[in-house]
Amino acid sequence: MKQQLVFCGIVFSSLLTVPALAQDNSVQLSMGKVSLEFHLSAAGSPEYSVLFDQKQVIKPSAMGFVLKDADSVLYTDFVVRKIEQSSKDETWEPVWGEVRSIRNHYKEAKVQLQQRNAPFRFLTIEFRVFEDGVGFRYVFPHQPRLNYFVVSKELSAFNLTGDHKAFWIPGDYDTNEYLYSTTRISEVDNRKMVEASTDIAVRTAPDPNAVQTPLMLKSADGLYINIHEAALLNYPAMQLHVDRNSFSLTASLVPDAVGNKAYLHAPAKTPWRTIIVSDKAPDLLNSRMVLNLNEPSVITNTGWIKPMKFAGVWWEMQVAKSTWSLSDRADTLDANGKLIPNGKHGANSDNVKRYIDFAAKNGIRGVLVEGWNTGWEDWFGNWKEEVFDFVTPYPDFDVNDLRQYAASKGVELIMHHETSGSATNYDRRMDSAFRFMKEHGYHSVKTGYVGRIIPRGEPHDGQWMVNHFERMARKAAGYQISFEAHESMRPTGLHRTFPNWMASEAGRGNEYNAFSTGSPPEHETILPFTRLMGGPMDYTPGIFKMKGYCWYAPERQMHTTLVKQLALYVTMYSPLQMVADLPENYAAHDDAFQFIRDVPVDWDDTKVIAAEPGDYVAYARKEKGKENWFIGAITDEDSRRLNASLSFLEKGKQYTATIYADGPGADWKTNPEAYMIKTYTVDQSTVLKLDLAPGGGAAVSIKPLTAPAPKGVARYK
Amino acid sequence: MKQQLVFCGIVFSSLLTVPALAQDNSVQLSMGKVSLEFHLSAAGSPEYSVLFDQKQVIKPSAMGFVLKDADSVLYTDFVVRKIEQSSKDETWEPVWGEVRSIRNHYKEAKVQLQQRNAPFRFLTIEFRVFEDGVGFRYVFPHQPRLNYFVVSKELSAFNLTGDHKAFWIPGDYDTNEYLYSTTRISEVDNRKMVEASTDIAVRTAPDPNAVQTPLMLKSADGLYINIHEAALLNYPAMQLHVDRNSFSLTASLVPDAVGNKAYLHAPAKTPWRTIIVSDKAPDLLNSRMVLNLNEPSVITNTGWIKPMKFAGVWWEMQVAKSTWSLSDRADTLDANGKLIPNGKHGANSDNVKRYIDFAAKNGIRGVLVEGWNTGWEDWFGNWKEEVFDFVTPYPDFDVNDLRQYAASKGVELIMHHETSGSATNYDRRMDSAFRFMKEHGYHSVKTGYVGRIIPRGEPHDGQWMVNHFERMARKAAGYQISFEAHESMRPTGLHRTFPNWMASEAGRGNEYNAFSTGSPPEHETILPFTRLMGGPMDYTPGIFKMKGYCWYAPERQMHTTLVKQLALYVTMYSPLQMVADLPENYAAHDDAFQFIRDVPVDWDDTKVIAAEPGDYVAYARKEKGKENWFIGAITDEDSRRLNASLSFLEKGKQYTATIYADGPGADWKTNPEAYMIKTYTVDQSTVLKLDLAPGGGAAVSIKPLTAPAPKGVARYK
Repeated sequence: MKQQLVFCGIVFSSLLTVPALAQDNSVQLSMGKVSLEFHLSAAGSPEYSVLFDQKQVIKPSAMGFVLKDADSVLYTDFVVRKIEQSSKDETWEPVWGEVRSIRNHYKEAKVQLQQRNAPFRFLTIEFRVFEDGVGFRYVFPHQPRLNYFVVSKELSAFNLTGDHKAFWIPGDYDTNEYLYSTTRISEVDNRKMVEASTDIAVRTAPDPNAVQTPLMLKSADGLYINIHEAALLNYPAMQLHVDRNSFSLTASLVPDAVGNKAYLHAPAKTPWRTIIVSDKAPDLLNSRMVLNLNEPSVITNTGWIKPMKFAGVWWEMQVAKSTWSLSDRADTLDANGKLIPNGKHGANSDNVKRYIDFAAKNGIRGVLVEGWNTGWEDWFGNWKEEVFDFVTPYPDFDVNDLRQYAASKGVELIMHHETSGSATNYDRRMDSAFRFMKEHGYHSVKTGYVGRIIPRGEPHDGQWMVNHFERMARKAAGYQISFEAHESMRPTGLHRTFPNWMASEAGRGNEYNAFSTGSPPEHETILPFTRLMGGPMDYTPGIFKMKGYCWYAPERQMHTTLVKQLALYVTMYSPLQMVADLPENYAAHDDAFQFIRDVPVDWDDTKVIAAEPGDYVAYARKEKGKENWFIGAITDEDSRRLNASLSFLEKGKQYTATIYADGPGADWKTNPEAYMIKTYTVDQSTVLKLDLAPGGGAAVSIKPLTAPAPKGVARYK
Repeated sequence: MKQQLVFCGIVFSSLLTVPALAQDNSVQLSMGKVSLEFHLSAAGSPEYSVLFDQKQVIKPSAMGFVLKDADSVLYTDFVVRKIEQSSKDETWEPVWGEVRSIRNHYKEAKVQLQQRNAPFRFLTIEFRVFEDGVGFRYVFPHQPRLNYFVVSKELSAFNLTGDHKAFWIPGDYDTNEYLYSTTRISEVDNRKMVEASTDIAVRTAPDPNAVQTPLMLKSADGLYINIHEAALLNYPAMQLHVDRNSFSLTASLVPDAVGNKAYLHAPAKTPWRTIIVSDKAPDLLNSRMVLNLNEPSVITNTGWIKPMKFAGVWWEMQVAKSTWSLSDRADTLDANGKLIPNGKHGANSDNVKRYIDFAAKNGIRGVLVEGWNTGWEDWFGNWKEEVFDFVTPYPDFDVNDLRQYAASKGVELIMHHETSGSATNYDRRMDSAFRFMKEHGYHSVKTGYVGRIIPRGEPHDGQWMVNHFERMARKAAGYQISFEAHESMRPTGLHRTFPNWMASEAGRGNEYNAFSTGSPPEHETILPFTRLMGGPMDYTPGIFKMKGYCWYAPERQMHTTLVKQLALYVTMYSPLQMVADLPENYAAHDDAFQFIRDVPVDWDDTKVIAAEPGDYVAYARKEKGKENWFIGAITDEDSRRLNASLSFLEKGKQYTATIYADGPGADWKTNPEAYMIKTYTVDQSTVLKLDLAPGGGAAVSIKPLTAPAPKGVARYK
């Protein structure tokens, strides 16, 4: 059937005349040291630039679009119809986070452009200038000559002032799980890294000079610049094409199965393009600009959303001690066509109970169980649409018995939904999967998208998958289900709008030390300046057995000291923190494990003590609703001393500080498990001297002294 | 996350040695006049040929595949491991159909091939030879070196013996709604037709020499040959590439979004490739081979599946008398953001009740209502994923009131689900849509897929959509819902396996006479030999107002006489037949409408009286469970007389025959509404002389004479 379409052409006649010029076709906005300048070129092309303390950060840079239709040009021939300026200063409270309340303070300019000639299209550019940076986005107003349209190219550019040092990963449409490269802008070439990263399931990086955001930059004159995006909804992820000669970065949108970038319907808006800048590295880690550029929570009752630590039947599979699958092959069947177990299935009821006991004993709220459901014999790498049904447990996983057992121990089980990239299959089964969860007492789920995406041809980071995750967040909220996504696009602060989307992987996690050659000691000092700028990461810290954990690769080892694993609970912010290692490995270091028992996952306040991307980071954080503080400090491959002033403590109040430090001779490579634990009394005037071993760290828990200090607890000097 | 995959390599060692040769590497099978020959070439390439009455129909032709993996060759280097021969002769009863029972009588050979060299892959070819033709399919057995695999090319060829006359439509991945071309094989070039067919929403025909199946052929020596496929499941539709010099046809599979053809997992099988052949055209229309090659019904309790005639709020939109949408534009909203009605919305409760009254008065079981649900303002042509939700009626469509009204009149409403091609959206909402149907008393649904498919890049006729329809059929069966699909791939006899999938459009229907320049008079004489060979078509016959029905194109007219519209209820077999015209147009010819009141939609028996593709067809069919017979005869643009012997009537029994004939001077172009109705007594010895006007037809209802013939009813001479 195709039927006659009778159209009734309503004409916006008043809007189809040549527009009147506004008084001025430029804007200048400043907040603190940050300034934004906008103007139209003689040709009517929008350009913006950014300054910090009078110094140029972004030179005049292009804006606009190429569309797919006949009138494809939407980047020039504009006049300014109107410029609306306003400002805002508000504070809001996140459902969970690094701080209890967040100030949202900016000046805004809405620049309404219209094309001088037919089709007289409208485009509005919204700028917001904060003390820590600039955000801008495009708005396509409702208008007569732009209804449904396809974006072929976004022209947003970020023209840098020099050949900055860059911390980058390849611009890959399907993964963010690369090691970081630290090079000059003029040296960005991702080909070697893409070829070498055979430990990543799917790699699609057609442009050798493309990088992902958040992109961390440092200029020769000491400016720290971070470029990313905020509120990525109904649009593909933005990557950046690097011009190695002009040091210009241009938006490179992840294409869909047929090469289009975005399907939009006016009125529409893009995500925010963000530039955070300071002359002090810690300021970037303190920035809440990306969160502020996201919309408030769409969930009104958020009481059911709970940050937590969780253990899990997971690391033992990562190190091939057990398997996700019940059998080794889908076709090893008995006479009745039932799978013949391989005897190594991790998610069997007894083993799960072992983890539940471990969690209950140590005050860990959750237990994740992977490999609980049928399909794992044959789940990976076949671009197969119907792999998992998400509702059928393996016969040795007694879902009802475990529900009761976990409840009796005050522990909650965390569901796992691996989709093997088949988002269409998950979409179709989501309701039944969520109903199954609620029927069996599950309130949160970890999802995975390993492998090529179905719909075939769609990449992990394109508009279709962005919309899939928005569907997921909204539907899960309807069931009061929280989730964290693995192999998703990297976050852009959407956890403000969807606080039930608590974390994502979307980066190279601790797990690479299990099944791969791992990540160098500097890795965790770069992540806060890159991947974490967009939102929490499920990094899975807390590995205590530093060597010899992998039978088929005995040479493998962690690339940190044990103490650095503790410090990660503070430096790698997430409302979900895995207690990733095996219970028996924690039992071997129960004194050090005390820090993991104590450290919370939700905070009233956060102070960045010291930070330099690629070298070190140190945070102090105050437990939500308590007077306890926790410090985490980590270094790269170099040993160093970091001084941590405790000036943030309450004046005149005494505290006990338990310091978990790298032991004498500790070294990530040769002696990773050497640590020492000392307790002192401290106060606001104390300055801790934290000595970090190569690849090491320090972790400190600070609690108010309620009684006199116990004997043998000296004052810190 | 990507984790270590530990594989346990089970070796089928006995199967990896060089296979032993079977006695013979050829087969010959015959049934009646049809013979099949199979042999392996010296190179070990499988070849088959088909003969009819000793005459070659298909010359030795290639078989096999090119796969996508390293060992891509699966068409040569074979030896025969084993050939199993068997035969079958059974009779089965379809849930509904053209005859009460169907004989499935064939000889079968299963040829087990294995490659002589590594990877020693297995391929089985199954042949079935019937009295009316040959079917073959490929089976990929479970084997060590073929598990998941991708088909890049199927090599099945059909080497014709000459430059046959062909009745064909372009090999288009997205539509079957073309006019038929009648040319020599050597003249097949679809470019002009594809370009000219601007009345088809989406056209994708990259190969100018590709045609669709069912392909109807006629050889110079009078053989009628039909090539198609049966049981199209989990595989793309097969089209045929025509070599215009060698007269060789080769399988051309519809590719997916990334250019692959089929994703299979051994053990697997392809659909059957079918060759129906006879020296008499009627034999092809009597063939049940395609049905016999499909699996029996997967639905055990089929009592809820009901053939029916249905009226509908539909033609009035096709002729632009009313609209599917409530408003003309999505953005014509009142102060409360509600759509401002255009005053022409067809699916308003009062109008629907008018159709319910019409159906009740005339014994028509169903009433289809299109345009009942929100979304139509803006549904088409934007490749938009979220158009309809399938559960939200327009405010002027009172779903509860109409449910009660229809029930009180003994009429059932038929649901309509237009997806606008967004199969992902429909997949996600199918359960809620079907629940909504059951809650509101709907038992059947008409679906539509107008526009480009989403997942973007997937064609209408690729494997992904084939699987979508299988999901639909199974899920609908679970809700005891019957359906017919528009813009689906053309049928392949799956209505045997899924009797709730009652019809499809998948061809150029009567509607083209409303919104397009229509189809020539020969069109309906070709369809039974092409499109209908695979299964029932929702052709929507019964238009009585032959001219001036379309206000915006007053020159439009039907390309048949009125009587031919009656005859189509018999010649165009379907268990669902629309009574397509407006009630007022039937009222204007109530005497002729009596035939539509009388004609059933389910049959005990079918006789093909006369048939020649492109010229004429005439059927007699016996009403299911009754002694009534109905005859339909149609012709192309030429007038002709067809003699219809009533020898099928019961011996010694008297009947009254009501003959609806073209009237004096009737002509589809100049005088389409001229008709005459006469009643006679007839018996087994009667031979009706049916005079068909240009573009005309004849319709006859024959009922047993229970009392003496009423006065004035003469004996037919």
